[in-house]
This record gives sequence, C-alpha cells and structure tokens, in this order.
Amino acid sequence: MTRHTDGPASYALDPQLAADTHPLATFAPYDVRLMDDANYPWLVLVPRIAGARELIDLDATQRRTLTDEIDTAARLLRDRFRPFKLNVATLGNLVPQLHVHVIARFEDDPAWPAPVWGRVAARPYSPEALVERMNLLLADTPA
Amino acid sequence: MTRHTDGPASYALDPQLAADTHPLATFAPYDVRLMDDANYPWLVLVPRIAGARELIDLDATQRRTLTDEIDTAARLLRDRFRPFKLNVATLGNLVPQLHVHVIARFEDDPAWPAPVWGRVAARPYSPEALVERMNLLLADTPA
Repeated sequence: MTRHTDGPASYALDPQLAADTHPLATFAPYDVRLMDDANYPWLVLVPRIAGARELIDLDATQRRTLTDEIDTAARLLRDRFRPFKLNVATLGNLVPQLHVHVIARFEDDPAWPAPVWGRVAARPYSPEALVERMNLLLADTPA
Repeated sequence: MTRHTDGPASYALDPQLAADTHPLATFAPYDVRLMDDANYPWLVLVPRIAGARELIDLDATQRRTLTDEIDTAARLLRDRFRPFKLNVATLGNLVPQLHVHVIARFEDDPAWPAPVWGRVAARPYSPEALVERMNLLLADTPA
C-alpha cells in the first residue's frame, strides 16, 4: 500500500513524547499520558490534532475542549495526590508537538519551588511503582 | 467609612506581581501586565478574582474567559514579535495569586531552550525601552 506523502498529515505522537511518557488514557480527541518521572505526579495532554504546535493553532472549540481537559486532569491530580500547588504549562521549546504539562507539586519535591524542567534528572518508575501509580490515577475513587 | 474586615475579600494585585510587572491594560475581569524583564516579551494575565490560586478555582465561565484572554495575548505577542515559540504557563509556586505567563521565545534569547524561570537575572526595562515596548503592544497595528 502506497502512502501518499502529499496528502493531509495525520496525527502521530511525537517520538520524544512517546519515549518520555506512558499511555494513561485516550479520550478523543486527546491523549493523556503519564510522564516517566516518579519525582512528581505529572500528566501530559496531547491534542490528537495533526500539526498543532501552539495553543493559538487551535480553533475556539478545540481550545475549549482542551481547557476542560486540563481542568479534569488538574482535579484528578488534586484529588489523588493532594498537592500543595498545581503547575500547568505548554512550552514545547524542545518537542514541537503541542502538549500540556499538568504537574502536582509539593514543598518537599526535588525541584520546589522552581519549575520542574531541567532541575533534577528524571527518575523513571519501576514496573511496580508504575502499576501502582496507574491504578491510583485510573481508580474510580481515591485509594 | 469603616471597612468590614469580615466581609468577602476583594481583589487586590499581589504585591510581588505588582513589583515585577508594569500595567498594560485592564480588560475586566483581567489585568494584563508586562513583566519587567527586557530579555523576553512577556505578558502576565491576572484574573481579578479574589482568592483565586489555581485554574481549578475558576468556574466554567471564568475558565473560558481566561482561555480566550490567553489566546488574545498569545496572538498579540506573535503578531508584534514573530517569536519562534510561545510559552504559556501558570505555576504560582512563589506568588500564590493566580496568574498566567504568556511569553514570546526566540532561539537566541538568554534562556533558550530552557523555560525562562530562574535562568538569568531579569533585565529591567529602561524608561525609553519600556515606552517603546508599551507602544508596540498597544498600537492598533504592528509597527
């Protein structure tokens, strides 16, 4: 089967994002992923929109949906982890695909009070810790 | 006139935010301010909502309005400065009052590609540079 390279681009998760995160859920039109860094409960939302790079690339409906999704992700982190603060950011200086970080912050986390990026090396989850965290995030009620 | 201190709290700009930024515009219900750091074109949006600390403290209408305001601010920075990337973030680890950073980033800015926070010391505007930047931001059409 020939793939027409001049056809409209389809959505595909950026390889760097794929490498850095674990899939948590897909609520069309968004992927919700867990950053592979046990230092912080850290979700990454990726709109499944081909070519989106900036928030201003979204139309009003897409923007509203993303805002609602950020709200849902932030409430989930708050309910499950009771953080001191929530950080929400879309930067994309290194990974161009539009993605939104939603991070639970604590006064005793390794980067506090600085933003998390570039402070300490990521601490990948052990398989057991990953399963535990996934279960906590996906449970119907807080553990 | 007596001010009842047990009444509902009223909105007041956080003193640290007031010290770090210049007023650019007030579109009820938001203050739009210019960060006093000539290293980056950097706007700060502050919802005029007493006690708001997290995005999830906003109701759906307030959230939608804020999202539209972020979009407007980001488009303004794009149109006036043609940045390589836009960064949008609400962190609030140090200043608790809810505020949203909207920052125009360039591949030759002093923090690139890292986030701007905590990288290099802020470079306050000279009076002349501040007037020039304010005029550029407030002009009806790009200079």
